[in-house]
Amino acid sequence: MPSHNAGPGQLAPLLVVLSGPSGVGKDAVLSRLRTKLPACHFTVTVTTRTRRPQERDGVDYNFVSERRFQELLGRGELLEYAQVYGNWYGVPKDQVREALARGRDVMIKADVQGAATIKRLAPQAVFIFLAPGSLEELESRLHNRHTESPEALAQRLQVAREEMKRLPEFDYIVVNADARMDQAIAQIEAIITAEKCRVQPRIVKL
Amino acid sequence: MPSHNAGPGQLAPLLVVLSGPSGVGKDAVLSRLRTKLPACHFTVTVTTRTRRPQERDGVDYNFVSERRFQELLGRGELLEYAQVYGNWYGVPKDQVREALARGRDVMIKADVQGAATIKRLAPQAVFIFLAPGSLEELESRLHNRHTESPEALAQRLQVAREEMKRLPEFDYIVVNADARMDQAIAQIEAIITAEKCRVQPRIVKL
Repeated sequence: MPSHNAGPGQLAPLLVVLSGPSGVGKDAVLSRLRTKLPACHFTVTVTTRTRRPQERDGVDYNFVSERRFQELLGRGELLEYAQVYGNWYGVPKDQVREALARGRDVMIKADVQGAATIKRLAPQAVFIFLAPGSLEELESRLHNRHTESPEALAQRLQVAREEMKRLPEFDYIVVNADARMDQAIAQIEAIITAEKCRVQPRIVKL
Repeated sequence: MPSHNAGPGQLAPLLVVLSGPSGVGKDAVLSRLRTKLPACHFTVTVTTRTRRPQERDGVDYNFVSERRFQELLGRGELLEYAQVYGNWYGVPKDQVREALARGRDVMIKADVQGAATIKRLAPQAVFIFLAPGSLEELESRLHNRHTESPEALAQRLQVAREEMKRLPEFDYIVVNADARMDQAIAQIEAIITAEKCRVQPRIVKL
């Protein structure tokens, strides 16, 4: 009998990329997942964006200067990076490598453009597209955020429409409908459990 | 925005094949899954094997004569069939087609040889290999069944060793270790949930 328990399949940690349009609720979902998946490492994105009042440096993001960001970029230390609405965002490679090397699953939050970049570098990652229940729900959530000008809001909605077209590049779609976040969380947990049962494991090499 | 909720992905029912060596606990696992997945249709296998005392005709199996079995076979009405230890087993095609047409997921129990046959006819099905915690556990379970002669037991163990080699033909491995059946059940449920979130749905055509 093959030692199926000792094979790489059951032990190889997963790299999970959670993406989706702006306003779909990625942060809220990740916040809930954090408590449910204590063994998982949640990468902290580096950004040049201005910190919002409720955000904590080093937890929600690593807020850095434009100069520091370009330095990381120049040294090839970002797994993915993108400029969105004039701000830079990036995922530090070392953080991901170190967690995977310790056998920890890694969860990356990425916008749709960033997920596409990660897919080129790490096609063996698990790509989850978090979708709104409807475009109306998405608009309402962005409105309630009170951080957008009408022009920025309209732009985000247009971008969201375009991003939905990239769904076929993802492995899974999870709908985060209003008042149904429990279901979305349960589905993401199920995806992680199922992926760990795959006979052909997804071994990420960075 | 694409109507991702109305697409075939989320609505197409799954065909799930649960397989694994004799004695691994397929029946016990299926019995538990039945109560957890009331919307799923569990196919009833047709067999020419003698009914064991605790088995119910029409529930555990449809027990039929050799003649009746050959009639079904001749009319091409079996999705898969196999002769194991001198007895015939088969899965009626109509039962599967009808349940899928009604939008119900279908769960088929199959030995490893049967699963291979189903994979040729329905490669889009989800193939789960139920594995024992160890070969010693498997031997102990077969012993406790008290239905096998020492020769039959030795033969089943040899067959199990060979069957483990066919693991790469399956999508998922779920270990049904002693006293860990809860985990196996949870993993199978997670696999079904995750498969329903796939962007590229598995549409079974029979």
